[in-house]
Amino acid sequence: MSKSSIYLPAGFRFAGVTCGIKASGKPDVSLIVSDRPLVAAGVYTTNQIVAAPVVLCRSRTPSSTVRAVVTNSGNANACTGSQGDADAKAMCAHVASLVGCDETDVLVMSTGVIGKLLPMEKVKSGIEHAVAELADREEAFFAAAEAIRTTDKDRKTESRELELGGESIRIAAMAKGAGMIAPNMATMLSVICTDASIEPKEANAMLRRVARVSYNRVSVDGHTSTNDTLLLLASGTGTPLQGDSLCLFEQELTELAIQLAKQLVEDGEGATHVMQIRVTGATNDASAETIAKTVAASPLVKTAITGGDPNWGRMVSAAGYAGEPIEPAKVSLRVCEELIYENGTPLKFDAASLSATMKEHPQVNLDLCVGGGNGEAVYWSSDLTTDYVRFNSEYTT
Amino acid sequence: MSKSSIYLPAGFRFAGVTCGIKASGKPDVSLIVSDRPLVAAGVYTTNQIVAAPVVLCRSRTPSSTVRAVVTNSGNANACTGSQGDADAKAMCAHVASLVGCDETDVLVMSTGVIGKLLPMEKVKSGIEHAVAELADREEAFFAAAEAIRTTDKDRKTESRELELGGESIRIAAMAKGAGMIAPNMATMLSVICTDASIEPKEANAMLRRVARVSYNRVSVDGHTSTNDTLLLLASGTGTPLQGDSLCLFEQELTELAIQLAKQLVEDGEGATHVMQIRVTGATNDASAETIAKTVAASPLVKTAITGGDPNWGRMVSAAGYAGEPIEPAKVSLRVCEELIYENGTPLKFDAASLSATMKEHPQVNLDLCVGGGNGEAVYWSSDLTTDYVRFNSEYTT
Repeated sequence: MSKSSIYLPAGFRFAGVTCGIKASGKPDVSLIVSDRPLVAAGVYTTNQIVAAPVVLCRSRTPSSTVRAVVTNSGNANACTGSQGDADAKAMCAHVASLVGCDETDVLVMSTGVIGKLLPMEKVKSGIEHAVAELADREEAFFAAAEAIRTTDKDRKTESRELELGGESIRIAAMAKGAGMIAPNMATMLSVICTDASIEPKEANAMLRRVARVSYNRVSVDGHTSTNDTLLLLASGTGTPLQGDSLCLFEQELTELAIQLAKQLVEDGEGATHVMQIRVTGATNDASAETIAKTVAASPLVKTAITGGDPNWGRMVSAAGYAGEPIEPAKVSLRVCEELIYENGTPLKFDAASLSATMKEHPQVNLDLCVGGGNGEAVYWSSDLTTDYVRFNSEYTT
Repeated sequence: MSKSSIYLPAGFRFAGVTCGIKASGKPDVSLIVSDRPLVAAGVYTTNQIVAAPVVLCRSRTPSSTVRAVVTNSGNANACTGSQGDADAKAMCAHVASLVGCDETDVLVMSTGVIGKLLPMEKVKSGIEHAVAELADREEAFFAAAEAIRTTDKDRKTESRELELGGESIRIAAMAKGAGMIAPNMATMLSVICTDASIEPKEANAMLRRVARVSYNRVSVDGHTSTNDTLLLLASGTGTPLQGDSLCLFEQELTELAIQLAKQLVEDGEGATHVMQIRVTGATNDASAETIAKTVAASPLVKTAITGGDPNWGRMVSAAGYAGEPIEPAKVSLRVCEELIYENGTPLKFDAASLSATMKEHPQVNLDLCVGGGNGEAVYWSSDLTTDYVRFNSEYTT
């Protein structure tokens, strides 16, 4: 999916370069610049331990005057005190001086090691290099997507083109995140660029709704990072989208965000399967979400998926401790579309055959009905493997 | 600890026998009988998917007329519908008929595979065998503690003798639980026997307070079982404990319960270390407990402990997503008594030396101050190893 060609929205230029933050010598500075003011909305980590770039971005969005987003990988600029705040600001100021805009119109993201100061000389020369490389070509977009990676196996991108009211609108988006490499807590960064015209207030509200059913519905290890950032940048200058067009745009954006969010889980550290948990029959959607999240986080459910074990006792009992109301006598479960538990009663099924199905499919679907209500939610999670444990228990501090 | 001699309280007889529920041929029926009425209090799983024996016990405690507790291992009698309810009742009725008491004065516990009906003929003959073996000797107590095991490496017991108001009081307790073997969800059973005289209302309230700071403060994998049961049985016939004596008894009971709860974590599936998380400075004790529990459940913190990695970024950021108020600028962390993060600022420390200390010690202490409040809590958890994943991802359904 990440290899398909990209519908580049008008008004954006991209670059990804290497400045030397990473010992590996891989790209580590990513830049997105627009020559006209962008509408920008952001959704950020809910962790109370917040990285410096997140603090800065929060204060600068929503906006209708953003001109650039600079990102470094390899260092999260988190838990770095006042020097970290100063460094985040300096990154923005340096970009502003080179592209000719106000420094408050530049956003910044960082991802990588926690608790280490940024090597600012390297970062500054990386920014200069990136500005020189800016281009509105696909290769430049991919380079920018490469340069935000940390432990990701591959770059993660999604793109769409749609017709709204006779106008063609393009969306191109990138993300990073695969879990964590010690002591790297910065799991998730994502930028969605579009040439749609959207009002800042609409963009802001829409991005929250989109995040709720996409990025906020995936988990590798349940550990919310200090740096999570999702940005929507819109370069359109025409009449802002409204009515049906706005709804259609949001629908498209939601589908794109879900695809990108699922890429995070597919690339979860050590993951061999994605599980999709669909909860229905809950008292309301929020309750269904909590139940789905609880099932997704259970190490016993995750290891059952790893082993191709249709272990319904683990799945059903995880729903039972989610702290949300369920009706045990109405609980039913399908694993890979096969009904194996119905209205609180186990059904006979061919365990060996279902196990083989689970092992074959990279995505295992769990459909769990928890009662007679109307609440429902879908959640995606990676499984838990010995590789995850090995990777994260290696001594790295 | 579990091998030390036991102070057997007056009024109890014990037995543990093999009836053939387990394919391994290991003991699987455990019986505790008193010839006089017992005060009995119980604390049970909060999972909404509840095993039949738990439903029955809940309806029969607190009580001042309990005469026996029968337990089988190897089968949880959970998710077994109305036949499961009938089987749990039949176990009690069979014990009652043999020891000569009302069937409502018998309690029952089950642990093992979920979703399978009990082999009742075997269970009944096991009960008959157990009744014949009842004795008030240490070996009988140990046999009873053996017969409630599932994946436990060893039996788990604790015992105390204390003087209260010139009277000698004895407490002997057993527990089982090591995590879960698929599809076995019944993690935790525990019975505390004492010859103290306690009023049922006091026993009930006390057991809730004791469970809150002991059994409810440990986690192997965060998956609350369908069968968890903690019973307090008191055989004393004198004046019920009150005032200072009651306080001292509760203090002793709390210490004993914490020791037994820690045994569960030490024996956590695949565990190589116990981590003790002490949270201070929270807004209140409940908030501290939530933060400690969140840190304890983080796979990234658990794998850091496995690898002997003083990875403070993971520990501090886990506190940040617990959903409880913290003051980031006042956050401090000690790992194995060494201060490595103070008032939101990383300190220099010898990572190799601290890592060696962590690896050497079977218990790793994390002392985390999260602000200026008075709330505090201690929580114990096992680490996360490749053995845990291997054990639980083996195909077993």
